[in-house]
Formats: sequence, structure tokens, C-alpha cells
Amino acid sequence: MPIAGRVWINNSTRQANNMLEKSWVESANNPDSEFPLNNLPYGVFSEAGGTSGAEKKRRCCVAIGKHVLDVATLERNGTINLGDPLLQAGNWNPLMAAGPERWQALRDRLKQLLGAGSSERNVCEAAMVDTSNANLYMPFEVCEFTDFYSGKHHATNVGTMFRGPENALPPNWLHMPIGYNGRASSVVVSGTDIIRPQGQLKSPQYENPIFAPSRRFDIELEMGAIVGTASSGPVSVAEADDNIFGYVLLNDWSARDIQAWEYQPLGPFQAKATATSISPWIVTKPALEPFRVSTPPREVPLLKHLQEPGPLLYDIDLSVSLQPASANQPTTLCRTNFSEMYFSPAQQLAHHSSSGCPMRCGDLLGSGTISGAEKHQRGSLLELSWGGKEPLTLDSGETRTFLEDGDTVVLKGKSRGKGYNIGFGSCSGRIMATKV
Amino acid sequence: MPIAGRVWINNSTRQANNMLEKSWVESANNPDSEFPLNNLPYGVFSEAGGTSGAEKKRRCCVAIGKHVLDVATLERNGTINLGDPLLQAGNWNPLMAAGPERWQALRDRLKQLLGAGSSERNVCEAAMVDTSNANLYMPFEVCEFTDFYSGKHHATNVGTMFRGPENALPPNWLHMPIGYNGRASSVVVSGTDIIRPQGQLKSPQYENPIFAPSRRFDIELEMGAIVGTASSGPVSVAEADDNIFGYVLLNDWSARDIQAWEYQPLGPFQAKATATSISPWIVTKPALEPFRVSTPPREVPLLKHLQEPGPLLYDIDLSVSLQPASANQPTTLCRTNFSEMYFSPAQQLAHHSSSGCPMRCGDLLGSGTISGAEKHQRGSLLELSWGGKEPLTLDSGETRTFLEDGDTVVLKGKSRGKGYNIGFGSCSGRIMATKV
Repeated sequence: MPIAGRVWINNSTRQANNMLEKSWVESANNPDSEFPLNNLPYGVFSEAGGTSGAEKKRRCCVAIGKHVLDVATLERNGTINLGDPLLQAGNWNPLMAAGPERWQALRDRLKQLLGAGSSERNVCEAAMVDTSNANLYMPFEVCEFTDFYSGKHHATNVGTMFRGPENALPPNWLHMPIGYNGRASSVVVSGTDIIRPQGQLKSPQYENPIFAPSRRFDIELEMGAIVGTASSGPVSVAEADDNIFGYVLLNDWSARDIQAWEYQPLGPFQAKATATSISPWIVTKPALEPFRVSTPPREVPLLKHLQEPGPLLYDIDLSVSLQPASANQPTTLCRTNFSEMYFSPAQQLAHHSSSGCPMRCGDLLGSGTISGAEKHQRGSLLELSWGGKEPLTLDSGETRTFLEDGDTVVLKGKSRGKGYNIGFGSCSGRIMATKV
Repeated sequence: MPIAGRVWINNSTRQANNMLEKSWVESANNPDSEFPLNNLPYGVFSEAGGTSGAEKKRRCCVAIGKHVLDVATLERNGTINLGDPLLQAGNWNPLMAAGPERWQALRDRLKQLLGAGSSERNVCEAAMVDTSNANLYMPFEVCEFTDFYSGKHHATNVGTMFRGPENALPPNWLHMPIGYNGRASSVVVSGTDIIRPQGQLKSPQYENPIFAPSRRFDIELEMGAIVGTASSGPVSVAEADDNIFGYVLLNDWSARDIQAWEYQPLGPFQAKATATSISPWIVTKPALEPFRVSTPPREVPLLKHLQEPGPLLYDIDLSVSLQPASANQPTTLCRTNFSEMYFSPAQQLAHHSSSGCPMRCGDLLGSGTISGAEKHQRGSLLELSWGGKEPLTLDSGETRTFLEDGDTVVLKGKSRGKGYNIGFGSCSGRIMATKV
């Protein structure tokens, strides 16, 4: 169904066009690379061990193979020209706000510069740094953060634990992407240590709550959609998809015990306010285009403002690993796929705007926890340990219900093409003891 | 109990020192003025009908009697010097971020400039505009908006309607300020028209929800506390009070029918995302200092992170009026007082930070709906019409359960000193039909 000049192709056509694009950067052609020419994700870096002001400055960059390309410098020396200076802010918000034509213009230019046979290899090589020498930062300024709850297996699992299998999904759940507003101030980039939160905890044994470090501190495996183009009133699902700039991995750290006590009647608040980690690379829509898939068949008819004009989800393999401080290796806890979502990011954004809520450049929308049908596909410890009742045994022999101090959690994401991958890098965080 | 060098005085001592400070601006000495020298609230204006770029530019200003004083111009011409230029941004965030010493320095300087006997009357007069010729704008940039639920009468009324009188207050309610994150993008200044939202509505008569304009669109009478000084981890109640820059009136427009269907299990979302109106003047803490009062006695002991070092609420008379499009006069719907709150803004801010949530300059914290014990003291139509079952009769003879298109709602707030008032201006909004 073509809308707004766009042709929605079916999955088999899409997959057939899906092959490695060659770069003169050899490491980008390795079939195991996360960052081939097809990807070109956007980050912000400084040079590790850099001593000059210029080296220490945060600059916009693009990942290519084992390197980052300093596009801020390339814009300053005229190699990249987008009409206005859009890559000088130390974050991607100016380009994000500039709209889809400029997004495409930059991608086209990067493919020229980095493609096999480029005549501008020298100027690029002068602006490249080994990824191992790059410190990565928040790729964009988050203006507001919204977290959804649109994973059906997750919502069913959590609902079953708390309300029994008959009432697992709330009555509204199939009709709209349920969500709540989170805290933009607590979104941090991968690698940032996470301090275990304190909060009010209420045990059924005691009459009054206590204030103490969370004992049920958890992860949530999610994807984050980033709004580029602002809107001031309701937008359709198709418009919403157009307004999305790109995607990151997202771990919405959650204190289940704080949540259990505080969440009635207005929802999660301090349970989700400690930190939310995102991966350092924004993977853009064109890189993911070959991996578009449809949301699942509907149990109930969707209202018009949520109907989809085409496939709006993506086939992205996701995993979660956990490594205790004492272990030498991480244990993979979960393998699932973004296509498990019941509502797409575009549907979520359309719903978010439906009341007239203004959406702005830098809005971050968490998908909700992504769990599959199988036990090893569950995207939170709450589900994996079934509310703490079924401890997990790690490869080191240790067991876990929820996170322990010193644990490092890493999310990974990858779409698999023919002979190449679109990777998201990793989204990691290590749990630090509460500061008291 | 003195803390951090501060002496908490009791209410009778405070009231005794509470007298009009005279200004050479005669209208400021009128006992009915909202803006005497004691007040000095901060806004942002441009000149109505201004034609030059300078006149049309948004500038920081202070209300004094029937005038606004253009402090941006006074800073540029050297009359005000705060060390750094802090009044040039077209909003108050730079001063807010600069901290309490600069806040006090500006207030001290304004009292010199505007006090009776000032030697700098001429330079001020050249920078003054009649309030009737000033267009007012958002006084600060809201980075995030949080809305609390700390009015005990309101929570009891709403809980009684939905869950019966035995279960009116949720078990957590007396132990902490229950709150949820709202949308900063939808906060607008007084006078902005409010478009009735559409959303999913579910009637018990129908199996599936419909998407339609809200039929139960409501007001919430609140105060907003504005964070000036940022914090990166948990803060005490006393520190929280220090970090608050000032206060505004706040109307959290609420679609009760959207809320009823969407709010389980994660709280209000699109029901509260259409708009939140604030008054155009930030009334600062020193202006309100004589009106500090204590929160009520506690039914349960508060945990340490919520204990108060002194009186942290304010005695502020509040009212709500409604004027239908067809009427010549507004009808007063509600008269109540900010001192009805169960938790103070400082307690709310301390709780907000308790998980380690970073709080930033420009964070806006809504108090929750402020209702008193009596029917005419209820701060929402939901309570005033008891869920729509008891329509109100307006002075014009029309009746109301919820808002109709064309209705104009005005909130007012005033602290009453000896021969003077500290006013907040008004917080108004007119309901416009849904755009379809």
C-alpha cells in the first residue's frame, strides 16, 4: 500500500536486495563486522589519551569497520557540506532536527566517501581514529524519555505473576501501546556505572515501609526509537515513521521492589528513575530498511490512528549477558528478537501524539521489554527468575535472581543480511553498591 | 531547628515582620496590588504592538505594580550587574542555574532600584512598560515536568469515587508523595488556548474503545515548584528547599475518560499530555517567606528522607473561576489554600531524587490537585461534580459537569500580608473544539 510517495515492499523483495556494500576500509567488509558501509551509525567521540583541546573535544562521528570517522572535522574542512553546519554541536540533534532530506544527503555523501573506489580516501584517513582509541558519549541530547510496555510476552509474564493468567493482560493492552513518561535526566550512555538505588520498600511482614537499597534491581531489554522531526499535534502512523531518526539498544534499569510499593495508582516513578542506558551508536532507518517486518496479526481491530501502512518493525536479533565481578566470562541470559513487539515504534509515536502532545527532536521512546515465547527469550530477570522464585545458574556456577553489586550486563543487537550484519555495538552497565 | 546555617522561625514571629515595603512606583503601594516591592516576580515579555526588533524581542522582566521592568535592558546598560550576563536569554534559566547567591543579589539590587528613595528612578522609568502593553511568555524553559498527587482531600475524593471510602487512599499514600512523570513539551503559559484532546474512550456499554474527543475534560488546580539548582544524587528535604527557585500557579488539564481507560497499570499518559498551563510570573521564595506554614500532623511516622526541618508549605489563597463563552462574568468554582497539601514541594523534590534521579535547572514539579475539606474547596470538576453526577450551576444559569468548548478557566493565587498581597497573576486557558 503506497502512502505519501513511499512504496512499501514485501519482505521477500526486501531481503533479495540485501547484500554487503563494499568499502575501501577493509575491516568494514569483514562479514562479522557490525559496521559495514551498509550501516554507518552515528556516535560522538573524543580521542582516548588525547592531550590537545581538539583531541579531547566531543565530536560527531560515524562507525566504519574498526574505525570512527570524524565527520565534524570533515564538515569543518569542507569535505562534507550539508548547506548549514549541522555536525558541530558535539551531538546529533542539529542534523536530527534538520529533517529527512538532510539525513539522506549525509548518508549519500558518506557512501561516496567511504565506498570502494572513493577518490577521497586520503582526506577520510586523516579524520579516522581506531575505535579502540575512541571514548564514546551520549550521541544525542534526550529531551524527554517515554517507556512503553508493548512486548506481549513480557506483559503476559508480568501480568501472570501479579494478577494470575486469566487477568494477565489489562483490558486496554491489545488496543493501544500502553506507556508512561520516564526521566530524560537519567539516560546515560553504555559503559556508565549504575549505582544501586535506594527507595521505599514494603514487605508484607512489616506494617511500615523501610528506606533501603533495592534488593530486586533488574534489567529491561528494549530498543529505543529517537524522534528527529518534531510535531505539534496528532500524527499518523506513517508520519510517525517518517519522523523517527534512528534506533539504539536500551536497558531500562528497574527496581522491582520500589516499583511494587509505589506504582499504585499512578505508575512507576522512582523505580525507573535511577538510570536508563543506551548504546552509543544511532542506527538509522535506511540501514535497517532491508530488515523491516510486520507486527503480528491482531486479536482485536485497531483503531484508525494505530493502523499500519506497511511493515514497521525490524528483524533485529537481541541478547543479554551477565558477568559477575568474580567471573572471567559473561553468561548469555536471553536471546530474542525485536520483531516480538506487538506495537511498532511508529505506532507508539502516533499514539503518543494522539492527544495533541507535542513531540520534539530528541524524544526517546523505549519499546518496552522484549521477550519471546520461550523461557530463554525473556528480557528481564523478573521473568527469567519468575519473580525471584527460580534462580538462574550462571556459567561460573553462581546463581542470580536479581542483580548483585559488581555484575556487568551487556545488551547486543544485530540484523543479519547476506554476508553482512547491521550491529548496534553494545549497551553495557556495571552495578555499583549504593552510596550511603 | 536550625539547619545549614538557616534559622527556622515560628509562624507568629514570621507574620509580625510582614509589612508592605514601599516603592516609588505608586501602583505597587496600593494594598490591592499583586505586585508590591515585597513580591518582585520574574516573567518574560515583549511589547504589544512593538514594531522594532528590540521591542518584539522576548526579554526578562519583573512585575512592579502596574508595570513591568525590563531587566534585560538594565543588565545590558550596566544598571544591573550580576558578574555574568544572566538575563539575556529570553528566559530565566541562566539565573536559575546560577544559584542562591545570585538570586539574592538580583533581589537586593531590584529593591535598591525600585524602593522608595531610589536614586536610580530615571534609568528604571526608561525601562518600564505598562503591563497592559506587555505580551507575556513562558518565564523559563521546562526541562522535565513531574506531577504529584499530594493533596489528601483530592486523593480521598478521587479514591472514594473509584474504590469506595474504605480504600480511598492507596496504602503507600501517607508514606510518600506519590507522583508520575508528565510531559514538559506540553507546558504552556497562561492565555494559551487549549484544544480539547481526542483519545481512546471505553464505555462499559461497548466491547471495544472508540477514538473521539474527550467528553470529560477537566482542570486540576495546582501549584508548580521550579528547580533552580541541579542535583545529581539524593538530596535532603532541606537541600531540596534550597534548590527550589520559585513557584507558579499550574492547571494540569486532564481528560478523565482517556485516563480511566489507559491508566492501568502504568499511570496517566495521554490523558495529561495535551497541555499544562502555568502563570506567567515566577514568585520567588523570599517573597513567600513570611507565609511559610507547616504541613499537617502525620498519621504515620515519615521515613528520614522525608522528614521536615521546618515549615515548608505556604499560606496561599487559591481560586478557580469558569466563564462560558456566552456569559459576561466568571463563576467562582473553588476557593482553597496551598496549605492544604499533605507533602510540601521540598518533600516532593527530596523524594524525586531519592533513587539517584538527577534533577536539573528547569524541572517543574506540580503539587497535585489542591482541594480542601469542603465542597466549595475542591480543585477539579471531577470532585466538584462528583464524577459528573452532581452538575454545577453557574451564575449564568448554565450547568457544568466537565468543560465545554468556549469555557475559559482562570486560576488565581494570593498570599495576604499586612496591607499588601503577594500575587501570582492569573493562569488562564480557553477550551477550543477538537481539530478533526
